[in-house]
Amino acid sequence: MVDSATQSGTVSGFFFGIILKFVFALLAVVKFVRSFYFQSTYRVEALTLSPHKTPQIIRNDVTKLSKVPRHIAVILDRKQKHVEGGGVEGLLSDVGEVAAWCIGAGASELTVYERTGVLKSLPLQDVYNAIEDRLRMYFGNSSSATFKIFNRQNDGTKSLGPSAAGSADPKLLINLISESNGRKLIVDVTRVLSDMVAQNVTSPKDITLDVIDRQLKERIGSEPDLLIMFSSEIDLQGYPPWHIRVTEIYCSPANNGNVSYLVFMKALHAFATAKFKLGR
Amino acid sequence: MVDSATQSGTVSGFFFGIILKFVFALLAVVKFVRSFYFQSTYRVEALTLSPHKTPQIIRNDVTKLSKVPRHIAVILDRKQKHVEGGGVEGLLSDVGEVAAWCIGAGASELTVYERTGVLKSLPLQDVYNAIEDRLRMYFGNSSSATFKIFNRQNDGTKSLGPSAAGSADPKLLINLISESNGRKLIVDVTRVLSDMVAQNVTSPKDITLDVIDRQLKERIGSEPDLLIMFSSEIDLQGYPPWHIRVTEIYCSPANNGNVSYLVFMKALHAFATAKFKLGR
Repeated sequence: MVDSATQSGTVSGFFFGIILKFVFALLAVVKFVRSFYFQSTYRVEALTLSPHKTPQIIRNDVTKLSKVPRHIAVILDRKQKHVEGGGVEGLLSDVGEVAAWCIGAGASELTVYERTGVLKSLPLQDVYNAIEDRLRMYFGNSSSATFKIFNRQNDGTKSLGPSAAGSADPKLLINLISESNGRKLIVDVTRVLSDMVAQNVTSPKDITLDVIDRQLKERIGSEPDLLIMFSSEIDLQGYPPWHIRVTEIYCSPANNGNVSYLVFMKALHAFATAKFKLGR
Repeated sequence: MVDSATQSGTVSGFFFGIILKFVFALLAVVKFVRSFYFQSTYRVEALTLSPHKTPQIIRNDVTKLSKVPRHIAVILDRKQKHVEGGGVEGLLSDVGEVAAWCIGAGASELTVYERTGVLKSLPLQDVYNAIEDRLRMYFGNSSSATFKIFNRQNDGTKSLGPSAAGSADPKLLINLISESNGRKLIVDVTRVLSDMVAQNVTSPKDITLDVIDRQLKERIGSEPDLLIMFSSEIDLQGYPPWHIRVTEIYCSPANNGNVSYLVFMKALHAFATAKFKLGR
């Protein structure tokens, strides 16, 4: 089946191949120099390895960025119970860490997507306490790390904020979402709108992109500026599809699923250096 | 503002940093060996550089894969006119190349997403002829490279297939889609369904995920198994959001936007070695 054209391609391909491999070697060297540069620019190792968690390190890293996302979304996985950092406890500690990094970086909204909805099924007070404990490791008892948490359900949102009366606006809003806030939410909104049509509250021709957009945002919040995946492959896992049209998506092929500050900083770096996207 | 905890972190961080940099050097070597291996496994250079385009090379590459996607989607950009491979001609030649690779690889459906819809605005016969010309470079005049092309509009699809009467089923179905098949299609479907509710054809509670899914698929085809981006950053550009829930998404950070066989093969390789995803 191998004809003569393929044969001659094999011979010339061999020599071209050697040249190409040389180019690939050069690329690998360039990549190494770049990662070396990244490591020296940001004090990633200091935060990862230092026993003293301090927001100052994050703040120092962030000042090197030309812009910081206002709204960050992350996709988290519950790891198996017997693994280090696994189970619900591991997941809650991941949420707390990311929340601390977000406050440190100056983002004001964080959306946590966990496909199965295990976070949303926990008592909201438990989630709140777990995050608060984690933030205390970074910020002490200071009032600079206040937050409000939202359990996003398609038929209504429960929230929990700082308990002290008369306290200032929280520094970070945290949305908990899951697979049911994805396609199913679009179905629910379609049903709500057609219900309104049936009751003559609205007419089909008044159903516009803006109307649907508003309905969806009311239920799960605004569109994130940056979506961070900690998996090595791009896997949206059913993340609310409507909401990532102009979102910058970051995935680190070198990462193995660990929720690490290195990946977080790399994502922020990519966001700051990304080209302007149409529609943003 | 730098307290003593940060200072001690700086010193210990320095030594830890050296260790980390050594690890990164090792990773770069591993990466180089892997890319070397990839280049030798697949005859990428042969097809890219050989003057004889032959489907045999693609077929040889594909036999090394454990599975091949049935439906492949690609996001293509129209490059500026004065650039090599730019303008509408460059775009059409890209579509033809990808179609040839798909047929060579044994995929049976190809969805081409071009955000602005320039492909859909061309006379369908012109697009058909351009693809046919390109396929002839690979397959000659053989009947092994027949295809049918669909211009997907939200209010109806135009199609064009092999002209000879009584010809066999086409080898490849090609869908042309654009930004208007994205969010706007969901709005249109919502409007259609609420219209049906207004006319008492259906009731709001009968609007289920399956109903919406069917309505959407009727208009833009099935969900792709693999979505290939040729940009260096993950950028969905408004790709129909409903349709990528379980799609494997591939993006090559090393690529610069060129529609190359190397990226195509890397994507197929990633698809074949990807973990099983929930819901697929």
